[in-house]
Amino acid sequence: MIVLLKQNPNPDQVEGLVKWLEGKGITIHRSVGENHTIFGLVGDTSSIDIGLISALDIVEDVKRVAEPYKEANRKFHPDDTVIKVGNTQVGGGNLTLIAGPCSVETEDQIVEIARAVKASGATMLRGGAFKPRTSPYAFQGLGEEALAYLSSAKQETGLPIVTELMDISQLRFFKDVDVIQIGTRNMQNYDLLKAVGKQEKPVLLKRGMSSTYEEWLMSAEYIMSEGNPNVILCERGIRTFETHTRNTMDVCSVPVMKKLTHLPILLDPSHATGKYSLVPSMAMASVAAGCDGLLIEVHNDPQHALSDGAQSLRPDKFDILAKNLIATHEFIHSLPEMNYQ
Amino acid sequence: MIVLLKQNPNPDQVEGLVKWLEGKGITIHRSVGENHTIFGLVGDTSSIDIGLISALDIVEDVKRVAEPYKEANRKFHPDDTVIKVGNTQVGGGNLTLIAGPCSVETEDQIVEIARAVKASGATMLRGGAFKPRTSPYAFQGLGEEALAYLSSAKQETGLPIVTELMDISQLRFFKDVDVIQIGTRNMQNYDLLKAVGKQEKPVLLKRGMSSTYEEWLMSAEYIMSEGNPNVILCERGIRTFETHTRNTMDVCSVPVMKKLTHLPILLDPSHATGKYSLVPSMAMASVAAGCDGLLIEVHNDPQHALSDGAQSLRPDKFDILAKNLIATHEFIHSLPEMNYQ
Amino acid sequence: MIVLLKQNPNPDQVEGLVKWLEGKGITIHRSVGENHTIFGLVGDTSSIDIGLISALDIVEDVKRVAEPYKEANRKFHPDDTVIKVGNTQVGGGNLTLIAGPCSVETEDQIVEIARAVKASGATMLRGGAFKPRTSPYAFQGLGEEALAYLSSAKQETGLPIVTELMDISQLRFFKDVDVIQIGTRNMQNYDLLKAVGKQEKPVLLKRGMSSTYEEWLMSAEYIMSEGNPNVILCERGIRTFETHTRNTMDVCSVPVMKKLTHLPILLDPSHATGKYSLVPSMAMASVAAGCDGLLIEVHNDPQHALSDGAQSLRPDKFDILAKNLIATHEFIHSLPEMNYQ
Amino acid sequence: MIVLLKQNPNPDQVEGLVKWLEGKGITIHRSVGENHTIFGLVGDTSSIDIGLISALDIVEDVKRVAEPYKEANRKFHPDDTVIKVGNTQVGGGNLTLIAGPCSVETEDQIVEIARAVKASGATMLRGGAFKPRTSPYAFQGLGEEALAYLSSAKQETGLPIVTELMDISQLRFFKDVDVIQIGTRNMQNYDLLKAVGKQEKPVLLKRGMSSTYEEWLMSAEYIMSEGNPNVILCERGIRTFETHTRNTMDVCSVPVMKKLTHLPILLDPSHATGKYSLVPSMAMASVAAGCDGLLIEVHNDPQHALSDGAQSLRPDKFDILAKNLIATHEFIHSLPEMNYQ
Repeated sequence: MIVLLKQNPNPDQVEGLVKWLEGKGITIHRSVGENHTIFGLVGDTSSIDIGLISALDIVEDVKRVAEPYKEANRKFHPDDTVIKVGNTQVGGGNLTLIAGPCSVETEDQIVEIARAVKASGATMLRGGAFKPRTSPYAFQGLGEEALAYLSSAKQETGLPIVTELMDISQLRFFKDVDVIQIGTRNMQNYDLLKAVGKQEKPVLLKRGMSSTYEEWLMSAEYIMSEGNPNVILCERGIRTFETHTRNTMDVCSVPVMKKLTHLPILLDPSHATGKYSLVPSMAMASVAAGCDGLLIEVHNDPQHALSDGAQSLRPDKFDILAKNLIATHEFIHSLPEMNYQ
Repeated sequence: MIVLLKQNPNPDQVEGLVKWLEGKGITIHRSVGENHTIFGLVGDTSSIDIGLISALDIVEDVKRVAEPYKEANRKFHPDDTVIKVGNTQVGGGNLTLIAGPCSVETEDQIVEIARAVKASGATMLRGGAFKPRTSPYAFQGLGEEALAYLSSAKQETGLPIVTELMDISQLRFFKDVDVIQIGTRNMQNYDLLKAVGKQEKPVLLKRGMSSTYEEWLMSAEYIMSEGNPNVILCERGIRTFETHTRNTMDVCSVPVMKKLTHLPILLDPSHATGKYSLVPSMAMASVAAGCDGLLIEVHNDPQHALSDGAQSLRPDKFDILAKNLIATHEFIHSLPEMNYQ
Repeated sequence: MIVLLKQNPNPDQVEGLVKWLEGKGITIHRSVGENHTIFGLVGDTSSIDIGLISALDIVEDVKRVAEPYKEANRKFHPDDTVIKVGNTQVGGGNLTLIAGPCSVETEDQIVEIARAVKASGATMLRGGAFKPRTSPYAFQGLGEEALAYLSSAKQETGLPIVTELMDISQLRFFKDVDVIQIGTRNMQNYDLLKAVGKQEKPVLLKRGMSSTYEEWLMSAEYIMSEGNPNVILCERGIRTFETHTRNTMDVCSVPVMKKLTHLPILLDPSHATGKYSLVPSMAMASVAAGCDGLLIEVHNDPQHALSDGAQSLRPDKFDILAKNLIATHEFIHSLPEMNYQ
Repeated sequence: MIVLLKQNPNPDQVEGLVKWLEGKGITIHRSVGENHTIFGLVGDTSSIDIGLISALDIVEDVKRVAEPYKEANRKFHPDDTVIKVGNTQVGGGNLTLIAGPCSVETEDQIVEIARAVKASGATMLRGGAFKPRTSPYAFQGLGEEALAYLSSAKQETGLPIVTELMDISQLRFFKDVDVIQIGTRNMQNYDLLKAVGKQEKPVLLKRGMSSTYEEWLMSAEYIMSEGNPNVILCERGIRTFETHTRNTMDVCSVPVMKKLTHLPILLDPSHATGKYSLVPSMAMASVAAGCDGLLIEVHNDPQHALSDGAQSLRPDKFDILAKNLIATHEFIHSLPEMNYQ
């Protein structure tokens, strides 16, 4: 951390700051220039609040040099995290394809879709049981009942299940769930993050609607610092001024996350675009950018879906797409690498 | 709700849509133009999902005419909501001044600040007990202990207490709390909103960091639809590209909310700007725009605050500001009204 | 400027950088820490491109300490700039009220409005001659003809004229214009900025739709560095996610600009909100925040305006508003000052 | 266009609106519902200003059904526009690779780079002569001299030249230029757009920093409506909250533009990311999404570039990348198509 002092700072306040920092085990390198004095702080600065130091009358600016995340930081964990889910693996060069409907509606529906997407190459099944809806009057998901239907689909097909947890009280229904999804609106629900950090199932952490990369990784850090290392990042589109699409999918999160963290990163082009006709292009772009996998909404009858139907593909379209994605993933990995540091 | 059909829509699908809507008690007015057919939907459309109808192959676009919120809607509740808190009132022409430190640190600190801000004209005391921090390694607040200190300050001064609830499990410590704050990161934590909707204390609902007006009011609706009508809105700055200030305070939320809803609206210039030198101007602007009150961070020693010190005023500065705000509020209300419909 | 080097940088490249900087007259203070070396650059760094230094393999990060603007910088010009326009002054504690229609339509229209707004207290007349329209098929303004009508209105009332210049070729029609407006879409049209910097009329520089404070001041610097010191800043709303209003008016630009620069700052609540019913509250907020003036659209028949009618007030409404604004401006200045450094 | 009237509108005003619209050749379909009356406007509504109608007291809302652009609209021009530049073609299934330095520095530099990128598969040469710089004190490009160097490089290699035009007065130096670039800051410099619309060279139109798709296409429409049909769109990253990258590249602009318009679309991952290490992934993503080509900064000595060096690749890295892109483009086109309407 670098602290830039104002010109002619009050010497007593400077010494007050120095003592306070040393009391926290920080060593200070002073660099006294013509106009400004700079403090270079050496030691574990992750618990030091930048805002607190900025507050001081004597301080012009503060800048973090080290990233504030540790467990999620590629620098301290150079190897890719690979997460075993059922008999599939997320990360490490695998292409994870998680497919299924936005909401679970009936047992027949979810079993039928599970069979179809498995045949097309999906490696996990997704389906909403508890649904975060903007309106309290909108359908909130079938809840516990939906989880029972998902269990049937898992039993039939062997596909591991991914579904969203909105409140820790729902965890008691998640026995058969393989990956717990934390939704975009809960990315900074810190009590929920701590709670899923204290249990053992892998967590798929969606990026907040307008979060920065660092905030996203700090939320992963909340989970990991409680003891659960199995976090899967998921980009699902950020809010921009554009209204033609629901969100703007940030494909660049892929190479950036590959550099900053060792955690796997998936993308959700269905939620990001909100239009099924845009999903194939964006899924292809994600694979070409080097992602670890995709979440794709698939519905057997998008015209009657109870939620988010506009972004679903029918199984026959998903079949072509999944095969194209798998082929492209393989092709991309056969090309000469372009290594950049 | 208006549904615009595509050119030459499949007639079977059109009839399917008509039947589905009529099954939900909606009456349809058809307007058949040269290029497009328009459906005007009459009835209670609040539970109808726009996304679902947009999904249909035959639909070009859907547009809500009626706002999706009812309880919070000024159209159905023309009179201002006035909320009694202790022996003060929020809304209805009163100027609510909620002052106090970002985090409660010691009993002495909070009692001393409470006395000072009361003398300056504050009508409630704020202080953080459970703190939502971006980093799991940062100070998370004194929790239960802080709530005990706040109780002491309340007993000493009679000032009602406002403090943030991050998880429903903390509610058991909130016996002496008068207003429950829901923070910006939890504005769409729907299970938490439902929980505070089921209890009786007034709720101060901060706007999400990048939420629209409608999303904010829909979150208020979550609380109100569970039975708690006492929601106070609080604008705390939205995220923009500007990095000089922490956020950009949307002063225009005041006249807009006055039009859309009957709920009182407060502003928090301390969190919005992140710089105490900007607080006075923005507080004055808020009062002149017609807000119902302000949250202002006051600290007895901003140089040593454990969090957010950079945005705090000392009690002596707050004293001048509070008096200016009260005088301006009175002056503004003495001017000829400019009524617009 | 502070340059943070990576760990173990290539010594030849470090010396290459040092030589290059010294060649530009920069002195370097080196601070060698355990993990990082920091260079503090002393001298005139305003022409040094941050991007260029960041490009170097050996550099981790670069940070400007000094603002890159000089002429516009309050640090080097502590006194407020006061700009004389006709027999009125902009800045220095005056409240400038610039009123008029979005587009000049007829001679009668503009003369009638000019008389009305002058009677209400306006100090300048605005009216569009050349209009920047999103669509090439929309009305583009009356051009030269409108400028002749504005001249008539000026002759009748003595009000100085403000109107937008879109291309330097139009300047030949601007003989009677008192203040040249540069619109939001041209805030970074650098050739146009240079051109108005080379002539003598004051320039009203609107903030770009999504510009930062620094970019805005750098555009002022383009004008000032060519020799024209008379720049008036104008905040006109920034683009945000909110669609209820046309833009989001950044009232906080007032106290921030008062700190960063000596130039006067006006606000345009009509363009910012796009709704005339929101103009009074936002105009009042601007005055309370300490602005130097306002641009307000006034139309004698908003129902038939050829452009932007939705944001216009009729002269009778403007009359009440102008008087309220003037009274509030006076009241605010009678309050005890809250001085913050 | 659909106009939604308020409840119980003033009948005289309604008839005033009807007459005004009919005077513009518009036919009105009225749909009178229980609560609202809807007008469906049929005819050429492209010159009707939505803001003007919204201004009316009787109007609740107005919505465009038809896109306001015609020349650029895929609906009226279903076939892809293919633009011949020298002996290469932009659009129509070709992969255009435009490479070169940000700024032209010396004749040797540009000739050497031109040779290298041609050998790697580039189809055009880019290089800045007139540079739009945020600071008036930064290097503004070599101007006319740079254009002479670009001519030499063209003569040596046969590569067509793309370079930015900032002001119409510079056009006299552009004799040898093959494609005129309009930069992001000038996307809504309407006089410049009209000027390049009146000449014959193809125009590469960069998307504004925070423009919507519709605004971008309306700027293309400005050029096309003046008679120049040869517009190439170029996505160069939009401004978001993320500061880790310079901008956020909107890869989704590719499938969206393919649907809305017949014009070719290129992407500029160098400017979008601002970091050369992110360019390969984003270039690959663009090709997989179906773009018509890429602009990539290539520099023979990025450590000494006079501008934007941080985003440049060296020719050896570009060589690998270009070959990977060409191979991927071919591979993608060999896959089964996923057709969505």
